[in-house]
Formats: sequence, C-alpha cells, structure tokens
Amino acid sequence: MSTERGRFLGGVFFVGVVALIFPPPQFLAATESAAASAAHADPVAPILLALMLIALGAALGGRWMSRLGQAAVLGELLVGVLVANLGFYFGQPTLTILREGETIRNITAIAFQQSVTLAQAAHLALPPGPHADSLAAILATPAGLNAVSVYGFVDPLARIAVIVLLFLVGLETSVSEMRQVGKASFFVAVTGVVAPFLLGLGAMAWLTPQSSLARDLFIGGILTATSVGITARVLRDLHQAQRTEAKIILGAAVIDDVLGLLVLAVVSALVVAGRVSVTDIAVIALKALLFLAGSIWIGLRVTPHLVKRLARLEMKNFRLLFGLGFAFALSWLANWAGLAPIVGAFAAGLVLGEFFLSEMEGKHSLRELLSPLESLIVPVFFVLMGMQVKLEAFAELRVIGIAAALTGVAIAGKVVAGLACSRKVSRLGVGIGMMPRGEVGLIFAGIGKGLGVVDDAIFSAAVIMVMITTLLTPPLLKAALKPQPSPAE
Amino acid sequence: MSTERGRFLGGVFFVGVVALIFPPPQFLAATESAAASAAHADPVAPILLALMLIALGAALGGRWMSRLGQAAVLGELLVGVLVANLGFYFGQPTLTILREGETIRNITAIAFQQSVTLAQAAHLALPPGPHADSLAAILATPAGLNAVSVYGFVDPLARIAVIVLLFLVGLETSVSEMRQVGKASFFVAVTGVVAPFLLGLGAMAWLTPQSSLARDLFIGGILTATSVGITARVLRDLHQAQRTEAKIILGAAVIDDVLGLLVLAVVSALVVAGRVSVTDIAVIALKALLFLAGSIWIGLRVTPHLVKRLARLEMKNFRLLFGLGFAFALSWLANWAGLAPIVGAFAAGLVLGEFFLSEMEGKHSLRELLSPLESLIVPVFFVLMGMQVKLEAFAELRVIGIAAALTGVAIAGKVVAGLACSRKVSRLGVGIGMMPRGEVGLIFAGIGKGLGVVDDAIFSAAVIMVMITTLLTPPLLKAALKPQPSPAE
Repeated sequence: MSTERGRFLGGVFFVGVVALIFPPPQFLAATESAAASAAHADPVAPILLALMLIALGAALGGRWMSRLGQAAVLGELLVGVLVANLGFYFGQPTLTILREGETIRNITAIAFQQSVTLAQAAHLALPPGPHADSLAAILATPAGLNAVSVYGFVDPLARIAVIVLLFLVGLETSVSEMRQVGKASFFVAVTGVVAPFLLGLGAMAWLTPQSSLARDLFIGGILTATSVGITARVLRDLHQAQRTEAKIILGAAVIDDVLGLLVLAVVSALVVAGRVSVTDIAVIALKALLFLAGSIWIGLRVTPHLVKRLARLEMKNFRLLFGLGFAFALSWLANWAGLAPIVGAFAAGLVLGEFFLSEMEGKHSLRELLSPLESLIVPVFFVLMGMQVKLEAFAELRVIGIAAALTGVAIAGKVVAGLACSRKVSRLGVGIGMMPRGEVGLIFAGIGKGLGVVDDAIFSAAVIMVMITTLLTPPLLKAALKPQPSPAE
Repeated sequence: MSTERGRFLGGVFFVGVVALIFPPPQFLAATESAAASAAHADPVAPILLALMLIALGAALGGRWMSRLGQAAVLGELLVGVLVANLGFYFGQPTLTILREGETIRNITAIAFQQSVTLAQAAHLALPPGPHADSLAAILATPAGLNAVSVYGFVDPLARIAVIVLLFLVGLETSVSEMRQVGKASFFVAVTGVVAPFLLGLGAMAWLTPQSSLARDLFIGGILTATSVGITARVLRDLHQAQRTEAKIILGAAVIDDVLGLLVLAVVSALVVAGRVSVTDIAVIALKALLFLAGSIWIGLRVTPHLVKRLARLEMKNFRLLFGLGFAFALSWLANWAGLAPIVGAFAAGLVLGEFFLSEMEGKHSLRELLSPLESLIVPVFFVLMGMQVKLEAFAELRVIGIAAALTGVAIAGKVVAGLACSRKVSRLGVGIGMMPRGEVGLIFAGIGKGLGVVDDAIFSAAVIMVMITTLLTPPLLKAALKPQPSPAE
C-alpha cells in the first residue's frame, strides 16, 4: 500500500519535474529571455538539467523494471523511448534534439563547414518533409542551440559510459576463463557472422529480386554486427555475469567485431571499386591483429611492472586515474585499429584485472573505486540509446515488411550461432546474448547510405531491426538464462 | 637518485606522450585520413585522448608542486599554461582551440546562427589579424572540427567539476560554523566590493582622465568579483579547509556574489539606459534573495525528510545520485537567480552536510563516495583554466601599463578587505583568499565588451589581472596561512 502510494507519488513527481524542466516552447521563450538577462547565465545550466532528468528517469525506470523482475537496463531504455517520443510529440527542443542522435552530429558538421545556418543545415542533412521543417525550426531558436550543446556533452558522456561499463566487465573476467571458452567463442562468432549474412542475402534476394547484389551484400553485412553493451549490462543487472555463457558471448563479441570489420571492408570495396584490393584488406586485418597482439603484449610485459610500481603508491585515486587512463588508451587504440572502442575497454579490463586482483588484494579494488562512476554515468548511455528509438518509424507501412524480414533474419541468424556451443551451456542464452546490433549495425547501415547502396526505406528498416533486437534482448535473455547461483562446470 | 631517475623518466614519458598524442599538423593530416577510413571512427576518440593528456598533465603538475611544498592546484594551472601555449606556438589544433576558451563558444554560435562556416565565424568574432587568421585556418580542417567537439565536452566537464568541488567544500562546512563567521564574512564581503570598486574607479580616472565614467564604473565592477574555486582548492590541498579563515572566505564569497550581481546590474543599467530602473534592480535582488531563502527553506524543511527516507535505502549509489542531483538542482537555481552556479553548489553541500552527517554516521559518507569523482574531474577545471592563460597578452606594451594598475588595485582592494576581520584570524590570509577573480571577473569584462564600454586594451588588461590574481593566490595563500594543525579558537 505504502509502496503503491510511493510509486504513484514518484510518478506524479516525475511528470511534474518533466513539465517544469522541459516546458512547452511557448513558455520557454519567456524563460530564455529571463535567463539571457541574468549575469551568470552559465552554459552548463541546461546540461545540469538534462543530466538530472536522465538520472531521475533512469533511477525510476530501473527500479520499476527491477520490481517486475526484469533487468534495470530495460527500464532505462523504455524511459528513454517514452520521454523522448513524448517530448518530440510536444515539440520540446532538448528532447527532440537528443532523439535525433547522430543526425545532429551531421547537421553541426554541415553548419561548420558550409556557409549555412544550423537550421539550413538540417534541410541539407535530412530528406525534405515535415520532420526536417520542425527540426530546422527548433534549431533556429536559442533553446535549439542550448539543446545542441547538451547533445555535444551528453553523447560523448554516454560513449565514455559504455567504455567504463566494458572496462568493468573486463576487470571481472579472468584471462584463463576466456582461454577456456576461446574455441566456443570462435565458433559462435563465425556462425554468428556467416549465418545472418547468408540469411540476409537470401531473404533480400527472395523478397526483392530486382535489387542489386551490392545492396544485398550490404544488408548481409549490417546483420553481422554484435553490440555487446546491452548484453553485458543485462548480465550484470541479473547477477549472471560470472556464467560460462557470459564469457562465451564476450569472447565471441570481440572476434565478431574483427570479422565484422573485415566484412565491412570487403563489401565496401566491392561496392566502391567493384573488386576487392587484397592489400587494403590485409592492412585492415593487420591493424586489428596488431591491436589485439599489442594489448596482449602490454598485458603480459608492461602491466605487471606498472601495476607493481603503482601498488606501492598509497594514493587510491591515482590508481583509479591509472585504471581509467589505461582503459581510455586501449579504447583509443582499438578505434585506431578500426575496431569498436569498447573492444579496447574490455581488453584493458581483462589485462588489468589479472594483475590488479593479485597485487591489490585487501585494498580498495579498482572495481570498488569505479562503482560510483558506473552508477552515475552508465545509465546515461542506455537512456540515450532508448531516446533514439523513433516510434514514428514503425508507422511507415512500406518499411514494415522489410523491417520484419530483417528482424526475423537478424534474430534467427544469431540464435543459430548459439548452436555452435556445447550442450553443457544454454545455447539459446548465448544466441540471444549475441542478438543486439546497437550502434555497430547503425554504423554499417550509415556507411551503406553514404555509399548510396542503402536507400531510405532499407535504412529505416535496418534502424527498426536494431531497435527491436536491442529492446528484445533484456527480457529474452532473462527468460533464457534461468537463475543459476554458482558458475556451472 | 631513484626519485631523480623516476622524475626524469616521467618527464621523458610525458613529452613522448604529448608528441604522440598531439603531433604537428602535417602528421595529423595523414592520421586523419587513416582514421576516416576506419569503420568505427568513433567521435569520442579525440575526447578520450584529450582527457588522458589533461589527467596525466594534472597528475604530474600536481605531484611536482606538492614536492615543492606548494598546493597541487598551482601545478595543474602551470601545466595548463605551459602545454596550451606550447601547443599554440606549434599550431597544434586541439590545444589552440582549448586555449581560446569562451571565444570558441562565440564562434560556434555565430556559425550556427549566420550563413557562415566556422572559419568565417572566427573572422567575425575576432579582431582582424594573424590570430584570427591562424584560428580560422585551424577551424577549416577536420582536426579543428574534432577540437571543437573536444571543447564542447571538456568545457562543461570543467564547469561540472567546480560544482562538485564547491559541493564537497559545502559538505565539509557546518551551518553553525558559517553562522559564527557570518558577521566577519559580511564585513569582508562589503569591504571587498567597495574597496576595489573605488580604487579601480580612482586609478582609471587618474591614469586615463579622458576616459568615460561608464568605462571606469565597469572597470570598478570587474574588480569586485571573487571566484572562490581556486581558494577552496588551495585550502583543500594544504589541508587547511577547516580553519576559521576558510569559513570567513566562503561566506564572504557567497555574499560577494550577490553584491557583485547588484553592482553589475546597476552599472549595466547606467551604461545602457543612462539611469537605473529601481524595479529592475529590485527584481534582480529579489531573485537572488529568493534563491538564498529558498535554499535555507529546503535545507530546514525538505532535506531532513528526504534524507531520512534515503538513509533507509541501502543503495549507496542511489545516495550519491541524490546528493549530486541536489547539488546540480541548487546550482541550476542559483544560475536562474543570476548567481554563479558554484554558489548553489556550496549551499547544497552546506544544507546536505548538516543532515547527512548525523543520519549516515558509520556508513559510506557522501564525501567518500564523491572522492573518486573529485580526483577524476576537478583537475580538469584547473588545467583548463591554466590553458586559457594567453602568454602573448603580456607582450602588448600598451596593455601592460593598464594591466599593472588593475592588478595592483585588484590585490590591494581585496587584501584591505581582510582587515575587516578580527585580529584573532590571519587577516592577510582572508584578504588573499578573496583575491582570485577567475571566470566571474571575465564574465563582467565580457559583458562590458558586449555593451561597447570596455575596449580591447582594457579587456586584455582585465584578462591579465584575472590571470595574475589567479596564479598568485596559491603561493601567497600558502605563505600567509602558516600550517595550523587544529582549528583555532
């Protein structure tokens, strides 16, 4: 009863805060002019507001889902979907801008590089229509400018958050565990790349026989991606991160990232040049391998000495700085090698966890030191991911058919990959864990769009596929992985 | 010997990292194109690099100064000055952009709102000359665009950092202590506003008799500001934050912010309208008082209940979220009231510290939870502040004279304010603690420039005054406040 009342009051409070913080535009005009007249009108003020709302929404959504027995991350995603789409519907500037995501980055780049205003850049970046018009109208207002600066802070913060998350996951994973699941991970990754690729190619050739092979190859490529952020977070929320399935998924995701990079390179080369330059592909593969070999070398040779020296320092915060700095450095290197930064963050955690655990026993562990930071910023990533789910995409009928086919193939292809494991683990769980495409699939689709092989309908369908696989993963993974208190085998 | 060698190796490592991370522009071009061809080219990569370098520089600078017995913050400031000006000299894009500070905000606003590119906007925002040309050239390159996105993340992060710092200072200060020093703070604040204002007015009237009264009034206004961030940090570094002098300075800085706001309002009104509208001034004063009264009301009525409920929650990270959310909310409100956000953050700490200390005894304190965050982000603020010290400003001879006069008056005016205290405390320490103008003085000068009363020479002189008072405070404060292990009286 008291809980019911508390939940109700919490809801009322949340709606009230949303209304106060993100008032309709007509009220904003008055607030803006008042703020402009203030002496200190600090540019950080709108960012503080956005962070507070995101944190509040994440906390409420997370608790709501935890009570329903689901992973907290699902609540964060759903709060993001709900708030951003309501905000868009009511024309609230900040929420509309945050919902656009990557598009805002393109628009600002155009405004910076061409002799156009931000509003004109929106018309250049988007297909003509009411969407471009309303976005341009918002970008012409001071509130729109504030919203762009909020995006310029919150988006990198979210990206750093997922780096911190994968670093933590790496810290909690031991190298020997990864070695044990190495073979299983490899087969899961290869199946998880080949199966969706072939299924996608086949489905497209069958559904739209008039389409070009280049386009079908690209769609196959989009389907190969795996974004391990969601899965890692779900496993943490459900306290299942130490299961064998979790290790297999993590290993497979790393290998998948390398394979996906090669698929992308091959497919792009085929589309652009009509043929594949072996040298180019070799350079790309070499960089990725160089990164992986480099992190192992750093792990075996450099880190033990570094950690031993640092262990003597009693400054616990210096250790935190070093840990995060190392994670950032390997993330940057991974990005240099063409891999996702989170692959680097995971490698950093893996390497550092091994030595920190033995050297630092009994003291404040790096995990403990990172815990406050994790709880502060990781939800930002998932709320922002939810915010970028555009519900109106589901209203375009001609897209829905392709989206349904892509989504089915995307799910089937990765679930099949789970069969590459031994029967001793939950093969369904592994398959579902590989399912979310996240930003990796979107990057692939975006490159295809840039090359002109992926048209708007296919792009929207790919976005829907990414959204559905992302939102379905938390509940399906929870259902597939029955609680299992101690690590199996 | 081992320390010497360690220091030498550390220095070599630092220079190597700087060279690797911020290579000369000709090398960058090659790296850029390689990065652009990579699949994942994540926009967060340049931000990760900048954060790593800032953290590394801050750690080395801080340790260097700590060894010399100085406050670590001085090392962070000096590393900022050194690295940014070297980077500017060698044309390194990111460092050049970070060094510009506020100017970049103006330039992006122009590029967004007018039909110009970022490079053209630089010419519109800056006086014609080689500085504008070189900045425009950098802003026309991809590296320049990356640097702008780095600034768009690092600048708000620094502002949030100083909010966290003042929140922590507030948490460590008790309301009753503040009440004890209330009278002393009030007299220090009033003297510290009146003395520099009159001294500035007099000095300008004497030095440049041909100048307008409006300009002299504005210069007086610039000199009234107090930016308490530096002082708070120095006192923390020297473990002197619990001294009576520290409380007096903090209280005086809050009152000073309110008084400075009123002075700014009156002076601006005189310049714009030629007369002062009593209604406008009353509204501004009312908002500031409303904020202060509101935070006291929240402190006495709302917080105890909230904290009691939160204390029952065993989620330590939820408590951290609540604490930071509260600090952000009061910072936002302070900004709404026309005050500096850090005044709100300090009030939030004061209010929350009172109840958290009694409710949460024995558990993880909010201070402990904030400590990792503090050590990660607070140095960013001070390195960035150091980076914005433009050494070439000291080369303009016609500016140096005015700057010397302003600086002398600025120091004298605040040191005199210390005399308003009783003899039982270090009056010199209090006066020096009130000395740094920081961003508050720059905001005042910027508004004057916007209104056309402050010309470029005066503006540069004001910037030099702010830089010198900021850089002098750490060593002078350390000298004035002899170590005093237990709180006096």
